[in-house]
Amino acid sequence: MKKFYLIIITVFFSCTQQLAIESELPRIKMVSTFDIALDKSKQNELELQFDKVLNPQNLDTWMKHMSSKPHHVGSPWSKQNAEYAANKFKEWGFESAVETFEVLVPFPKVRKLSMVAPNKVELKLYEPAVEGDKSSEMTKDVLPGYNAFSADGNVTAELVFVNYGLNEDYEELKRMGINVKGKIVIAKYGRSFRGIKPKIAHENGAIGCIMYSDPKDDGYVVGDVYPVGPYRNEYGIQRGSVLDMPARPGDALTPGYAATKDAERLSIDDAPTIMKIPVMPISYADALPLLKAIKGPVVPDSWKGGLPITYHIGPGPAKVNLHLEFDWSLRTAYNPVGRMIGSVYPDEWIMRGNHHDGWGHGASDPISGMVSLMEEARAIGELTKTGWRPKRTLIYAGWDAEEPGLLGSTEWVEHNLKDIKENMVVYINTDGTGAGYLSMGGSHSLEKFINEVIRDVKDPVHDVSLDSRLRSRMRVREFNVGASELNEESERTDLRIYAMGAGSDYTAFLHHAGVPALNMAFGGESGGGAYHSLYDTYEHYKRFSDGDFIYGTTLSKVNGRLVLRLSEADILPFRFVNMVENIGKFIEENKKLSQTVEQSTKLRNKLLDNNDFTISRNPNKTYLQPERLGQVPEFDFKPLDDAFARLSSSAWKYEEVLLKFKKGSLSAEKKSEINSLLRKVDQAFTNNNGLPRREWFRNMLYAPGYYTGYGVKTLPGIREGLEERKWDEVRLYINEVAKALDRASNNINSASRILNEN
Amino acid sequence: MKKFYLIIITVFFSCTQQLAIESELPRIKMVSTFDIALDKSKQNELELQFDKVLNPQNLDTWMKHMSSKPHHVGSPWSKQNAEYAANKFKEWGFESAVETFEVLVPFPKVRKLSMVAPNKVELKLYEPAVEGDKSSEMTKDVLPGYNAFSADGNVTAELVFVNYGLNEDYEELKRMGINVKGKIVIAKYGRSFRGIKPKIAHENGAIGCIMYSDPKDDGYVVGDVYPVGPYRNEYGIQRGSVLDMPARPGDALTPGYAATKDAERLSIDDAPTIMKIPVMPISYADALPLLKAIKGPVVPDSWKGGLPITYHIGPGPAKVNLHLEFDWSLRTAYNPVGRMIGSVYPDEWIMRGNHHDGWGHGASDPISGMVSLMEEARAIGELTKTGWRPKRTLIYAGWDAEEPGLLGSTEWVEHNLKDIKENMVVYINTDGTGAGYLSMGGSHSLEKFINEVIRDVKDPVHDVSLDSRLRSRMRVREFNVGASELNEESERTDLRIYAMGAGSDYTAFLHHAGVPALNMAFGGESGGGAYHSLYDTYEHYKRFSDGDFIYGTTLSKVNGRLVLRLSEADILPFRFVNMVENIGKFIEENKKLSQTVEQSTKLRNKLLDNNDFTISRNPNKTYLQPERLGQVPEFDFKPLDDAFARLSSSAWKYEEVLLKFKKGSLSAEKKSEINSLLRKVDQAFTNNNGLPRREWFRNMLYAPGYYTGYGVKTLPGIREGLEERKWDEVRLYINEVAKALDRASNNINSASRILNEN
Repeated sequence: MKKFYLIIITVFFSCTQQLAIESELPRIKMVSTFDIALDKSKQNELELQFDKVLNPQNLDTWMKHMSSKPHHVGSPWSKQNAEYAANKFKEWGFESAVETFEVLVPFPKVRKLSMVAPNKVELKLYEPAVEGDKSSEMTKDVLPGYNAFSADGNVTAELVFVNYGLNEDYEELKRMGINVKGKIVIAKYGRSFRGIKPKIAHENGAIGCIMYSDPKDDGYVVGDVYPVGPYRNEYGIQRGSVLDMPARPGDALTPGYAATKDAERLSIDDAPTIMKIPVMPISYADALPLLKAIKGPVVPDSWKGGLPITYHIGPGPAKVNLHLEFDWSLRTAYNPVGRMIGSVYPDEWIMRGNHHDGWGHGASDPISGMVSLMEEARAIGELTKTGWRPKRTLIYAGWDAEEPGLLGSTEWVEHNLKDIKENMVVYINTDGTGAGYLSMGGSHSLEKFINEVIRDVKDPVHDVSLDSRLRSRMRVREFNVGASELNEESERTDLRIYAMGAGSDYTAFLHHAGVPALNMAFGGESGGGAYHSLYDTYEHYKRFSDGDFIYGTTLSKVNGRLVLRLSEADILPFRFVNMVENIGKFIEENKKLSQTVEQSTKLRNKLLDNNDFTISRNPNKTYLQPERLGQVPEFDFKPLDDAFARLSSSAWKYEEVLLKFKKGSLSAEKKSEINSLLRKVDQAFTNNNGLPRREWFRNMLYAPGYYTGYGVKTLPGIREGLEERKWDEVRLYINEVAKALDRASNNINSASRILNEN
Repeated sequence: MKKFYLIIITVFFSCTQQLAIESELPRIKMVSTFDIALDKSKQNELELQFDKVLNPQNLDTWMKHMSSKPHHVGSPWSKQNAEYAANKFKEWGFESAVETFEVLVPFPKVRKLSMVAPNKVELKLYEPAVEGDKSSEMTKDVLPGYNAFSADGNVTAELVFVNYGLNEDYEELKRMGINVKGKIVIAKYGRSFRGIKPKIAHENGAIGCIMYSDPKDDGYVVGDVYPVGPYRNEYGIQRGSVLDMPARPGDALTPGYAATKDAERLSIDDAPTIMKIPVMPISYADALPLLKAIKGPVVPDSWKGGLPITYHIGPGPAKVNLHLEFDWSLRTAYNPVGRMIGSVYPDEWIMRGNHHDGWGHGASDPISGMVSLMEEARAIGELTKTGWRPKRTLIYAGWDAEEPGLLGSTEWVEHNLKDIKENMVVYINTDGTGAGYLSMGGSHSLEKFINEVIRDVKDPVHDVSLDSRLRSRMRVREFNVGASELNEESERTDLRIYAMGAGSDYTAFLHHAGVPALNMAFGGESGGGAYHSLYDTYEHYKRFSDGDFIYGTTLSKVNGRLVLRLSEADILPFRFVNMVENIGKFIEENKKLSQTVEQSTKLRNKLLDNNDFTISRNPNKTYLQPERLGQVPEFDFKPLDDAFARLSSSAWKYEEVLLKFKKGSLSAEKKSEINSLLRKVDQAFTNNNGLPRREWFRNMLYAPGYYTGYGVKTLPGIREGLEERKWDEVRLYINEVAKALDRASNNINSASRILNEN
């Protein structure tokens, strides 16, 4: 579902964030998972066997088959792909079934958009086939460009260009004296989950919303367009859901429980996550005449796109009619699930998942990741032929209906919540993947473990480990931006993994169940302009992405190792020193934010006192002064600092205990007890009351931003309280996070105690 | 000549630079010019009289007349305007004459550019008249789009797109494995003086150079284009000189001496400042088919422009034929000069200047500044009607032939060099001016003085002083970029003036003669897309710039006060504490640069040792590793630090002496002696050997960049040595600057001694 953003987030994290506690890492020697929990030679042999089996040709064959027809949820080919995957799992030695849910997914019935003033223009709203891409000619069953969970509606109004349609953009509009009430807004795609744009538009009184891919972000400004190059051509339309996922993903009619056949359902009118206004995505060829016809003030510099026009804000004189009607039926979501029951710890689950539904042919998104998962499952199946069995239970799933709102995975989590919380060790997600550099996100209790794996897997092109290649890139990037010294991140003992917001199927696992989750993909050397368009085809992928599937196979190696080591480790490889260092960073960032909010409030009010906004303004332009803000109270972070100190001490204590620990000295019972404690450390960060306005989101460490949607907010209760100036929430969540840290400390301390008693 | 850049430089300085010694400023009380050198009530009365006389309607009338026809050097209307101004000066009570030089200025004879492959395209090379602008219809005598001092030539070759055509761009091309040898380059205008682009292209082996205005920098991306808005439309061509002015401005055939009728002249072939390859400016409408036809690698992100294409680098397959021939005749440059001899100090000169020649109708550039200067001269003439006479000699000049290479002013300076060095107190320059905020550049010995004046002049729209408005803007800008605290610059006792590179007629005064110079203009609220095109007309100026001439009149108030206070002050208002603080900053910046060069050299070599460039690179793209660099030696800045400490001490000593000084207590002789010392402090910074490769540039504090051309390099001998890795130059100029500072200290100390003896 979400591809671009992962890469951006990684860059952000690797470039800008500082280490608070890294200097303490060498305080004691750190042991590896091999030192404490695995027979190194046996495990190496197992992984070597695993690698030998992998064959890029399989990925190619399966992608060609699975992306040969459109396969959105509810389409015949989605069902076919689900059964195909389930049969493969079975063939490879898994217990396999297709598990189903009945989810609401609207399909378009009426889809009309035209400019009615100052002149009449009928828009194309259509993606033509392109030369050299047979798939783009096969448009039977393709859903045209639309936004799932738009409201039905027939509205006519003047247009207002609102940049990316974020809160800060509306603040800018306010200063320009422009109101969108009763208007239709047109927003650029990007910088947020797309559903944010109509949500904020609606909050501001707009009656319709058009979104388009600007060529500066996603088109010819980025690079050559399809079919010459990989980037979005003038007709490419980004489909996608506008369900209010930052409030709650999953089926709109069954909030917090599974969308089984007989489940009680909300009426569509009462479903809070469905958009309240009509929303429509268009191409930049269609956006051009609309934007050209908008007059009024010229946009601020940072709003400018790549079309050959001067961008104006409006309102009008461009006026459009937007008429949308949908078929609001339930569709069956088919989740193929393969289980291989653990030989020693059958009640401890390692899960892998990747969605299989796409918009259109969905070769890159999601089949590229799905075929990598399948090859990994096949290779594990091959290992069992030699008599080996995994110690823990492995579950491989293909999720349906991810695109309309993470429906397949969310309903599965809601359906199995109790068992997941009891038994799930880790959920490892993949989604679309390409060529280049490994991107790694997830729960920081697994940061050290992932780093062990990427030091053991080689890049398929360059004769170095994935870890080395990532570090080379970090150093070269710093060099390229003119740094004169290396930033500490590139020299850090373990590479940092990014904290996860939302955008793929790890969401319900991480944010609702609270189980540790990871998200892995390759990217950075494959152009991505086909996203959610008719052109996300096998042909496109072969030419412009990981066409020989060598990175897809390397992804199998990485995830296979994660699975095999998690499966075989006597003591689960959760390690808390890295986690603590990351949490320390989150706390520091939030403290700094509280200071920034306070200082910038003071500054604003000082400038208002000075009359600076009026004195400095250009008399030929409307630019009102910003509102005066109330004073920011001082916040008492001490409870959080204290809890953090306790957590930090627990994490180090656990390392000390591990250092003394003798491999193989634990009884089965003790192992089970310790592992149960360890795998619930992450769950300790959840709180059943959840976050403000969205109790479904229970993780106190991470959440997607309520007003950004994909991007993560760390310690979201505190951070969004500060951003939205809800001081009571800040105070409340300082304490809630402190309590969460203490719960985690207790778990770690108990594990240390048992290990130490040994 | 140069308008955009001034504003950019001001912003740069006000936003990024730190105060080194500001904290010392309150060490002693600072007296004002009124406290020590002027009768405040008499002076205020004089300035009030001056203000009363000013009438915006005069500026309007004169602009309408002077910009009614094209008036480049050598045109009938240039001569007419010179005589018009000279007659006005005479009418207003000045001794007036038109002084002439015979300067080389090529006019185009053959001007052809066409694409010959992959398809044939004849380019327009033509600016059509636009609706609502009568002037744009009057094209008799207009010089078409061309670059003065391009070589003659007829070349055919493949195109290479070289971004802005700067050294860093060629380094990037090298890493991409692209060579411009034997090719024709196409470069975007901007980021440097235009003559830099063909100069560097030639150094890299290119045989021709095309320059165009990209709409991202200068066209529809910036704002609505003419005639809807003020910005450059698709046909607008930026004319301009490509004389190698960073090496030496002025007449190409008479290096370092005046281009009098009978002067000895170089042959054109031997003149080093004439370009060696043909160069041609085009519009973005003409650039579009060329850039569209270029293939090869896609440009780096920072190279992208605003045309609706994917920018590629080439070489080819686009191939062009460029055929240029010029009429290499001498033209007469007419400088109208009005003198009002000082009643008390006739040998101390205060000079004002603004060029009068333009490309095309030149309403904004330069007539907007010229009419402000004329109104100022008229008002001074009016003051004399009441019997008042200036104590010092005032000289008002209109320079011809500024556009082709600062010819009129440079020849005048070279012709009068001895007298200028002996008698000139200050040269105050203006050029095109608009509406908005005052921009102030110049010699820092005058920084405090200028600040006194801008606190006494009100903005014509807002009821606050110019100083207050500038500070409001600084604060609001910081707020707008999200600062949480104010930067020290906006709270500085005196606003910083920018250090000057080149680009207008102060150049020969400041950089060759070494006399203190200032450059003053309004801007920031007037759109500038007519620069050097057919559309720089009265109609354009009226609609989009200072159409009611209230800022032009305010500029007269500012410069009038500078002139009147300089004229009447018993002791000249040079003040060295601000100067020293700025020089301290220059030294710190250069030291920091030496460290950065050393560290980034080490980093580059470390990454080469690691093989990072190879490991991290995308196998599908050519991107070679950068060259290994030699080690950077450590530089001994002690001689400079010591000299700076002495200068600082001299500056503060002078302030202490001023504090004790009793106004009116000096004999005429002593005054004369002190003022002679004071006005030569700035000249003490010059060195007759000049800068490396360009002895004409004698100022050790400031110079235009040899490879940037407009932008200033402070302590250029040291800084360019560091940038170009010429370590011997760095060592040499650390000592030369130290000696220059000591010469200045001696002058200040002598002045202090005489004042103290009093």
